[in-house]
Amino acid sequence: MTTLLDVRAAEGRIAAQIEETPSLRSPALEKELGVEVFLKCENLQRTGSFKVRGALNKVEVLKETGELPLIVAASTGNHGAAVAFAARSAGAAATVFVPTNASPRKLELIRELGARIETHGNDGAQTERHARDWAERHGALYVSPYNDADIIAGQGTVALEILRQAPPLDAIFVALGGGGLLSGIALVMRELSPQTRLFGCSPEPSAVMIRSIAAGEILDIPSGPTLSDGTAGGVEAGAITFPLLREHISDYVMVPETRTRHTLRDFMRTHEMRIEGAAAMTLAACRMQAREFSGGAVAVVLCGANVDDETLEGVRKGAT
Amino acid sequence: MTTLLDVRAAEGRIAAQIEETPSLRSPALEKELGVEVFLKCENLQRTGSFKVRGALNKVEVLKETGELPLIVAASTGNHGAAVAFAARSAGAAATVFVPTNASPRKLELIRELGARIETHGNDGAQTERHARDWAERHGALYVSPYNDADIIAGQGTVALEILRQAPPLDAIFVALGGGGLLSGIALVMRELSPQTRLFGCSPEPSAVMIRSIAAGEILDIPSGPTLSDGTAGGVEAGAITFPLLREHISDYVMVPETRTRHTLRDFMRTHEMRIEGAAAMTLAACRMQAREFSGGAVAVVLCGANVDDETLEGVRKGAT
Repeated sequence: MTTLLDVRAAEGRIAAQIEETPSLRSPALEKELGVEVFLKCENLQRTGSFKVRGALNKVEVLKETGELPLIVAASTGNHGAAVAFAARSAGAAATVFVPTNASPRKLELIRELGARIETHGNDGAQTERHARDWAERHGALYVSPYNDADIIAGQGTVALEILRQAPPLDAIFVALGGGGLLSGIALVMRELSPQTRLFGCSPEPSAVMIRSIAAGEILDIPSGPTLSDGTAGGVEAGAITFPLLREHISDYVMVPETRTRHTLRDFMRTHEMRIEGAAAMTLAACRMQAREFSGGAVAVVLCGANVDDETLEGVRKGAT
Repeated sequence: MTTLLDVRAAEGRIAAQIEETPSLRSPALEKELGVEVFLKCENLQRTGSFKVRGALNKVEVLKETGELPLIVAASTGNHGAAVAFAARSAGAAATVFVPTNASPRKLELIRELGARIETHGNDGAQTERHARDWAERHGALYVSPYNDADIIAGQGTVALEILRQAPPLDAIFVALGGGGLLSGIALVMRELSPQTRLFGCSPEPSAVMIRSIAAGEILDIPSGPTLSDGTAGGVEAGAITFPLLREHISDYVMVPETRTRHTLRDFMRTHEMRIEGAAAMTLAACRMQAREFSGGAVAVVLCGANVDDETLEGVRKGAT
């Protein structure tokens, strides 16, 4: 079972290779919501997202056990870049399988980090199955973006930093796709700050984990298009994040696309950073919920920055 | 005479009201230049630039001496927003004089921070003279953006943070307009890290301080248009920054506009933050000079983020 100790160990392994990203106050959101708002800036993290934490931890654990096989990932973006970065830093080779519709900006990032890219399939689930099969056939190691204890422990290091950077928090808003980040944060907060409420935030068109938790079992349901592509897609059968979230998380928010879009537009006007759709979706969830913590303090994890200029431009110009 | 002690005192006064902005590594620049590059992110500072440090220190010093008059500034942007922020935080009123061509984004920011805006004149020098006269006639206090010991001490706090955040540095690149920021940083580094070279960076079309230092006297020469609007404009006769820089700074870089423009475009492609022209200009200077520190480490102060979307869009689309 993964615990706080694993997250602390992960921090020891990866600290020298990542940024301790800041938790910046947001005057604009504080004025709007009447709470102190801390933005945990994983959009400023190496490779442009928190995913590098889990991937580095995974690779470092592998190194400790001596084996460094070819590392395989399936990803349309952040996880792929994270695995490429981690593999390179450890001197391992990586192959990232991507669906045909993957965004050029993200592919460029993965390629620059030295990974081989293979295109297969039209959606994440298809690509993922193929990557797993391919890895098995070739004696390579498939690394899941969330269904892996070392990945979860790595992502949890975000929470250790938040605890050092912010005052006691009433709530933390976290993007929820497969649940790696939220599970890792839960492991830390349940031990060190149990009074802090954790909100799992998913886009309404692709809230597979939230609907699965509600149903009591992992559902195999389709996802619609969403600006929050970083959290989109299905949840693997038997995912270890499912029981973790069931046990630790009771607050979930499904965010309508229009709110994500409006929040991204507002954010670009009032803040100095690039954020991707999944981060805007999490901020939108905060705007929907944070008033109940009036006079208190909340944090929002800005999970990443990897978004195409064209997408941002479309949002900025106000097409809703 | 302003010293390191004044900068330390300034830090004590302002720390609770500003962000300790991060010094982030830049993988893209490190790869290009072969040196460790730390970006001191004052673009993520409250009000979108380092200027809030000096303004807050000034207002806090005034508070300690008991008087809090109407505060007057002349600015096309960052200094105006900083003075508005500082005045509001101290419960004082502020009036900011701006030239007729001031950018809408910056005016909006100043207005949101609660300052009164008065439009006067077509260039910075004209607006500045008018603001000084007006302040004198109305018993208000004119606050210079650089010709003021308390402002300089406030800006110097940037260097105290860099020293805590980065390893020993071979060089720091700093935007140079009137010289407030560079003077403050020099006061700190000359005492605590004298081996670190400090580069004063100005845009070629408006390098009044650099040309004045070269001439041995403050020159009254015109400025051409530049993307680095934050450092543009003349230097006041008798500016206290002039002797400070003459004594402490021997490295200066004049940056051609095309380099600033190209650097801003490259930065938008490879980094997740908004930076303004003056920050891009400083980065461009680093790209011109940093190879001589091959294998070493340098820092670049990203002085601000306040730039219009239209300007960024024009640069992104590649009009040079």
